[in-house]
Amino acid sequence: MTDFDLQPVGRVRSALKSRSEAPRQAAEGAPMAEVIIAPEFAGALDGIGPGENIWIFTWLHEANRATLRVHPRGNRRNPLTGVFATRSPDRPNPIGLHRAKVLEVDGLTLRVDALEAIDGTPVLDIKPALICEPA
Amino acid sequence: MTDFDLQPVGRVRSALKSRSEAPRQAAEGAPMAEVIIAPEFAGALDGIGPGENIWIFTWLHEANRATLRVHPRGNRRNPLTGVFATRSPDRPNPIGLHRAKVLEVDGLTLRVDALEAIDGTPVLDIKPALICEPA
Repeated sequence: MTDFDLQPVGRVRSALKSRSEAPRQAAEGAPMAEVIIAPEFAGALDGIGPGENIWIFTWLHEANRATLRVHPRGNRRNPLTGVFATRSPDRPNPIGLHRAKVLEVDGLTLRVDALEAIDGTPVLDIKPALICEPA
Repeated sequence: MTDFDLQPVGRVRSALKSRSEAPRQAAEGAPMAEVIIAPEFAGALDGIGPGENIWIFTWLHEANRATLRVHPRGNRRNPLTGVFATRSPDRPNPIGLHRAKVLEVDGLTLRVDALEAIDGTPVLDIKPALICEPA
């Protein structure tokens, strides 16, 4: 493993099976979903419980990493914009950032209230989220 | 490049030269800093301007990736806690998440108001931040 190799720590389990079904943001109708942590990372979950707000970092494995500019929201009427100014999944390092609330922790499974990532998406990290991150 | 290889898109330029000098959060006295984007990713910056709030994703290259539990805030009186329940830089995939405001864009250099990453930290991604991310 070199310095820049990611290791998936888990996977998303979701009713969303394809990118075309997935909303662009959790608030746009994303379903409840589960994050299944791999057994070797169990210790890292200690202290996460129901009611907590978390950031889930994913690897958007179907993204096009060569894309530098997009029409925002996939609408060709929107002018081409650099991907760093958008939430497009297509970008050089397609890291997804998802805010969710933990509903239940059952062993290695976290059930969360809403997640716009598709089934099978690799999970990279979880961090506690503040109610409102400082500006 | 395999699916899980990161490619740095830039670097942090900061007066913070070592991890021991760096505050744990930007709000805890982090200095102004610059993000220098590599020329091949220039197009991805189109549309980022002064006054915008962004998420900067970094690779915390000095982190210990084998750490699964820590004493929060490095204080041994705090009970050992899983790293997914903390903001510790030591974690399986040491991705740093930093909220900042863009002060100036000068070619490939973004000057931001506060950043707790040390000089030379690789930058992985930039995304627009909402004033308050939805809960």
